[in-house]
Amino acid sequence: MGILGASGYAGAELVRLAHAHPRLDIRWLGAREHAGKPLAEVLPGTVGVAGLGERTLTGFDPEVPDQVAALAGQLDVVFSALPHGKSAAVVAPLFRAGVRVVDLSADFRLRSLSTYERWYGKHPAPDLIADAVYGQPEINREQLSDARLIAAPGCYPTSAALPLYPLISAGMVDVSTPIVIDAKSGVSGAGRKARPNTHLPETAEGMRPYAVAGAHRHTPEIEQTLSLPDAPVSVLFTPQLAPMTRGILTCAYVRLTEATDNAAERARTAARRSYVGGLVSVLDAGRLPDTLWVRGSARAHVAYAFDPRTGWLVSMCAIDNLTRGAAAQAIQALNVALGWSDALGLPELAQFP
Amino acid sequence: MGILGASGYAGAELVRLAHAHPRLDIRWLGAREHAGKPLAEVLPGTVGVAGLGERTLTGFDPEVPDQVAALAGQLDVVFSALPHGKSAAVVAPLFRAGVRVVDLSADFRLRSLSTYERWYGKHPAPDLIADAVYGQPEINREQLSDARLIAAPGCYPTSAALPLYPLISAGMVDVSTPIVIDAKSGVSGAGRKARPNTHLPETAEGMRPYAVAGAHRHTPEIEQTLSLPDAPVSVLFTPQLAPMTRGILTCAYVRLTEATDNAAERARTAARRSYVGGLVSVLDAGRLPDTLWVRGSARAHVAYAFDPRTGWLVSMCAIDNLTRGAAAQAIQALNVALGWSDALGLPELAQFP
Amino acid sequence: MGILGASGYAGAELVRLAHAHPRLDIRWLGAREHAGKPLAEVLPGTVGVAGLGERTLTGFDPEVPDQVAALAGQLDVVFSALPHGKSAAVVAPLFRAGVRVVDLSADFRLRSLSTYERWYGKHPAPDLIADAVYGQPEINREQLSDARLIAAPGCYPTSAALPLYPLISAGMVDVSTPIVIDAKSGVSGAGRKARPNTHLPETAEGMRPYAVAGAHRHTPEIEQTLSLPDAPVSVLFTPQLAPMTRGILTCAYVRLTEATDNAAERARTAARRSYVGGLVSVLDAGRLPDTLWVRGSARAHVAYAFDPRTGWLVSMCAIDNLTRGAAAQAIQALNVALGWSDALGLPELAQFP
Amino acid sequence: MGILGASGYAGAELVRLAHAHPRLDIRWLGAREHAGKPLAEVLPGTVGVAGLGERTLTGFDPEVPDQVAALAGQLDVVFSALPHGKSAAVVAPLFRAGVRVVDLSADFRLRSLSTYERWYGKHPAPDLIADAVYGQPEINREQLSDARLIAAPGCYPTSAALPLYPLISAGMVDVSTPIVIDAKSGVSGAGRKARPNTHLPETAEGMRPYAVAGAHRHTPEIEQTLSLPDAPVSVLFTPQLAPMTRGILTCAYVRLTEATDNAAERARTAARRSYVGGLVSVLDAGRLPDTLWVRGSARAHVAYAFDPRTGWLVSMCAIDNLTRGAAAQAIQALNVALGWSDALGLPELAQFP
Repeated sequence: MGILGASGYAGAELVRLAHAHPRLDIRWLGAREHAGKPLAEVLPGTVGVAGLGERTLTGFDPEVPDQVAALAGQLDVVFSALPHGKSAAVVAPLFRAGVRVVDLSADFRLRSLSTYERWYGKHPAPDLIADAVYGQPEINREQLSDARLIAAPGCYPTSAALPLYPLISAGMVDVSTPIVIDAKSGVSGAGRKARPNTHLPETAEGMRPYAVAGAHRHTPEIEQTLSLPDAPVSVLFTPQLAPMTRGILTCAYVRLTEATDNAAERARTAARRSYVGGLVSVLDAGRLPDTLWVRGSARAHVAYAFDPRTGWLVSMCAIDNLTRGAAAQAIQALNVALGWSDALGLPELAQFP
Repeated sequence: MGILGASGYAGAELVRLAHAHPRLDIRWLGAREHAGKPLAEVLPGTVGVAGLGERTLTGFDPEVPDQVAALAGQLDVVFSALPHGKSAAVVAPLFRAGVRVVDLSADFRLRSLSTYERWYGKHPAPDLIADAVYGQPEINREQLSDARLIAAPGCYPTSAALPLYPLISAGMVDVSTPIVIDAKSGVSGAGRKARPNTHLPETAEGMRPYAVAGAHRHTPEIEQTLSLPDAPVSVLFTPQLAPMTRGILTCAYVRLTEATDNAAERARTAARRSYVGGLVSVLDAGRLPDTLWVRGSARAHVAYAFDPRTGWLVSMCAIDNLTRGAAAQAIQALNVALGWSDALGLPELAQFP
Repeated sequence: MGILGASGYAGAELVRLAHAHPRLDIRWLGAREHAGKPLAEVLPGTVGVAGLGERTLTGFDPEVPDQVAALAGQLDVVFSALPHGKSAAVVAPLFRAGVRVVDLSADFRLRSLSTYERWYGKHPAPDLIADAVYGQPEINREQLSDARLIAAPGCYPTSAALPLYPLISAGMVDVSTPIVIDAKSGVSGAGRKARPNTHLPETAEGMRPYAVAGAHRHTPEIEQTLSLPDAPVSVLFTPQLAPMTRGILTCAYVRLTEATDNAAERARTAARRSYVGGLVSVLDAGRLPDTLWVRGSARAHVAYAFDPRTGWLVSMCAIDNLTRGAAAQAIQALNVALGWSDALGLPELAQFP
Repeated sequence: MGILGASGYAGAELVRLAHAHPRLDIRWLGAREHAGKPLAEVLPGTVGVAGLGERTLTGFDPEVPDQVAALAGQLDVVFSALPHGKSAAVVAPLFRAGVRVVDLSADFRLRSLSTYERWYGKHPAPDLIADAVYGQPEINREQLSDARLIAAPGCYPTSAALPLYPLISAGMVDVSTPIVIDAKSGVSGAGRKARPNTHLPETAEGMRPYAVAGAHRHTPEIEQTLSLPDAPVSVLFTPQLAPMTRGILTCAYVRLTEATDNAAERARTAARRSYVGGLVSVLDAGRLPDTLWVRGSARAHVAYAFDPRTGWLVSMCAIDNLTRGAAAQAIQALNVALGWSDALGLPELAQFP
């Protein structure tokens, strides 16, 4: 297998996970700006690790047919952690040449081309959108079987959809009222490039919203996953930056179709039924999620609480944005596509503390 | 003036602020378990500070009339940062002996005795509840004039009420729908006592909810402040611990009575009108609050955004839980009670970064 | 294999690593105060992880022969992460009954009983001291072969010894001058029990020394490892708490026997020769270590710089105190004892970022 | 007074402190790249603060005589927080026009032009070096009297010199042996510009050395302050970045001329004698410094411990790099120059926690 974009955070996490996966063998590390450097230069944690640190990052021009053919002859699957708007152009020729593709960018997530172009600009390979399967394993398990172009979900949409999908499917949610989704993410979600809003002195001890009131491009992805054919869902999504490196905690507030005292228990039952065989842990009554408990893990933790005073339900989800929210979920989707168990080669235990 | 409970975090902040206040002179430092120790032993930052570090923490028995009389002869005003359920018993005899009291505990915040006792247990001085003024200066300015028993508001209620009060007063909010309040607090809000959930290795890199679905005792205080005589308000309040020391960021989601595109602008106008002369900064359109910008400051930052997709309004507020959420607000309330300007002696600038 | 003390940090890390190790199978989880609880209660990250979260922590009385015999019949190896002074008493009967023991406490690290008792109090099994092998794999590789009682090294001694041992062995260090060792540790090194000095509000943003001037009990362990038979070494060791969860960065300052300009290069050569086959990465000239690059990894990063102005050498080492400094190193020592490769089943890549 | 470079961290701290100073009135805010913007845009904490947030940052061309004359007519003193190599060119014409200057850059700290130029490049105003007074108030009190060009010391040199100066002056230190100085700084010391090594995900949980083995330009400044006319001092200085925003903890290790058991007590006595009237707190035996206790404070905390095993002395110092290490120390130096008390208008209490 090959990894495109190994110098970014999702790419680095792919390297860590693939290195430990019993059936994946990293044969190629593709890069753009860092091409020609040894991996140890961009990921010093690989210094001295045999077969890894001294490997060279390789440039790749998707418009040169010979390069495409050569790579396609060498790789059965490629993971792309390139940025939105860049990834599709690079993976499209590989896909057409027969390489199975797992794309961690947003390029193949949205089924509507016009929605994509409203948020991300011109699509580099619109004709492939119909070939892509949205890679949320616990939700799209059947469609993923032998999928050859997998769009790995975004981190926020993962944390919002996992707790809510079973409830909406079970008809528990009054979707005529907006769903309020308040999400807090670690700073690694902003990527590896240093910016003023990720500068430690202005990030530590700071808690702040951004892209509020529908301004974040994960909004349509969340709605796409949660909407049923006859029941569109409207979400009010508020992303926030929390002063930590990894983790997303998402609280979603829904009005119930029936506000009964056992609503949280019904929610847990629905979620447990949906997620058999997957990597979602539904917490028992009285337990609440904590991003610390899933740090570095492929698992999502989901919990529910019913508020008797208002009759609303609080849905909570904790994930590691780089693991369950990106690299591990992408590998999990590949595992499912290839008929392996979801957890094959993936860390199910957090690195705690 | 005197300070009770100087070894806790709110007390330590009172010491810092009172030390710099031009009209307050710290004459007495009362303590319970640390009585007899020099202040520098419990607050090492005071080592070497003339007139402070070598001062002795003094025990005080409110049931000994001579002690009460002696203290009352010496102090015009006392701030109490003792815990809920303990504070009222200590300050009641001082108040009765003529000392002006600013109580930072919850003991005099709730007007309903039965509500108090449901959340906090038996009230130590129920007959004084009617004498107390809720000390939110920008909201209760008139009642605070010459108030002699001031109940300083809680930190979460401050961050929830400041952005919402002007909107509800102006009739902008559809109070028949629950108000969703999602609040994230720094760990100092949990107090100075070390606990498993404040242990750095299990707190850094962790974002977690607690006391969800109406289980937090600040819920009734928020509703008391926001409810109008003929329009009770129901809130769905979710407190969360963020991996930082100070700061609260609160996002409140409300359904509007009229979902017009200029709703955020109307909200800003209403808030600015309400808060003339106070210590609330209403941010311009496009700016969002950040706890870092109010760290150590007496000011609250408030912002609004309208979500055209759902027609709901997002209200945001950032405060420092120990300054605006506790000690500075208590001094501000005293300033107002004594006819001084709100900001007298208080830090309006954050310690940045 | 079995793990004693799984609810502490070193124990939790043993669970994480052993769970992923291809030749270790966690058959028994021993505990004292948490006996009877499911593992998921003390390590919520295991919720939902098949074969782990629902496992029960089991009490064990080492003074009951039947319990010892039953356990010895079931386990080939046991790792103990019990506290100093408690561990030896529990593992001694298991060792005598034929179980191979890897002890992560200090109980078997010091060869001198009197030194042990000066620092730790009465030794619970002094007759076994001579049977123990100090489990620093890269330094004691030969003695570890088939070792049956392994004393896993302390975290600070690991970070101090790895960079210095090759230099002292090569005669590069003037040991008549004290070696200055300035070490900074993450807070997890203080253990899982919440204390005032690990309370997040008083730890974040705080950098502080403790147990200075020879008052830390790792001092004799460092000197034992570094001293040659005819050349005792004297260290001036300063441990410090850094505001982070994991990681130790140690800077050691030595006067050289020959202060030549190529001293750092000579040091790198000596270290690389010593550590063939091990898990120590010696950084190239110009690279400096960072605890972030070894977070969660079994590897140590070592670097050297020569100061031409003073003629002294700066030796630097970064490790993860819980992984290389405790659990991974313990498993690495077992790997070596059993003739497996050092890295078998261990994470060589940091979880980055 | 005026402030040059108000948008950087030292400048922001100058604004905070000057705003609270009873005899300083901020009349002018000079800037380069941000000229024309309101202060609230670069320092959002000033939003709504009367007389501050709406103030405009003003450009200034030191080569236009009219601008110099106009500014000199308006200001009695100017603080410059411009970068090294830029500051001198801007403040020189103001100084020549009669404005008292406190320069926080390195431009006037080193008495030797050649040393300056080796580390910082061409000096913009070498003829003024002789006019400058090094502004370490407790050390240079007499020279500071009515000083008109004050070079405020660097942060590392402050933390190194304060504990060591009294010992060296008292002849306690064997200066023929190098002094080992191991210093750990918060990230704000790297300035406000976001860089890869200040990006939160690669800084939090990371402890790392940089510019080791004499490569840091504060080395000559430390040696200049500590060297006596007949006793040059040589230091081995190791700066390190700690995962926190503010604070420096420096440990300095010295060989004593007489290694007596009461060496720490003699050191405390020497320091207390040197620092009468200043803002240095010498901690009692048994207390160790913590950067948390001086966060935001003008005070330095100093402590000593004698290591009987090696006969060396450990000197420790904690300061806030932006307050005592920059802005507060600069104002303290002005206070001394003008005959005011050291602490006038300065925060002596940390913002704790």
